[in-house]
Amino acid sequence: MLTDHKLASLGDAYINFAYSLALSNRRGQPSGAKVKGTVLAEALKKAELRDSLPSRMTRHVLADAAEALIVYAWLQNYVTLEESVAILEKAEDPVEGFSRLLVVTKDRVKFF
Amino acid sequence: MLTDHKLASLGDAYINFAYSLALSNRRGQPSGAKVKGTVLAEALKKAELRDSLPSRMTRHVLADAAEALIVYAWLQNYVTLEESVAILEKAEDPVEGFSRLLVVTKDRVKFF
Repeated sequence: MLTDHKLASLGDAYINFAYSLALSNRRGQPSGAKVKGTVLAEALKKAELRDSLPSRMTRHVLADAAEALIVYAWLQNYVTLEESVAILEKAEDPVEGFSRLLVVTKDRVKFF
Repeated sequence: MLTDHKLASLGDAYINFAYSLALSNRRGQPSGAKVKGTVLAEALKKAELRDSLPSRMTRHVLADAAEALIVYAWLQNYVTLEESVAILEKAEDPVEGFSRLLVVTKDRVKFF
């Protein structure tokens, strides 16, 4: 699942939308943003999910894994869009926000 | 509102996510897609909203207007994400889908 490119592609759209909403809430005005793969790869490491994946994966593949996991949890109703936005909104920076979202996801999905 | 770039930027994220979900439902597997500005500009014309806007607007500005209107309707609870996805999913092509979504939006928001 974590290496499913199609799921990662849907996850990319979910993540950009959730992060744009979080940013809009923080700023008090509508905002759109694209989340970089480097941010997601860092967040995955910070969430201590890196060790659950094969070694020597590129940052791009790590980012795909984060995207796939986050949208999988949403599709399976483990985490709502509202909760995702709230977690991202409260965080100091995007890496911390996505790391927290990944930890919540990991605890509920129980793949690992 | 229809020339609000920040709203259009959030709308871009909303539209890509809604369209990706519609595509996923149609294909029966997760899919991600980015909706081109030309599609949104065409949809705006097809929805007969073009005449509500100043003349000589570029396609880019027309696309921004479509993005702003669609996400405004979602933010104000005139149209849910689920309904947006259902409308896009049923349409034969993206121009028709977004045109239908814009018509529904126009009827409910009553700006025009």
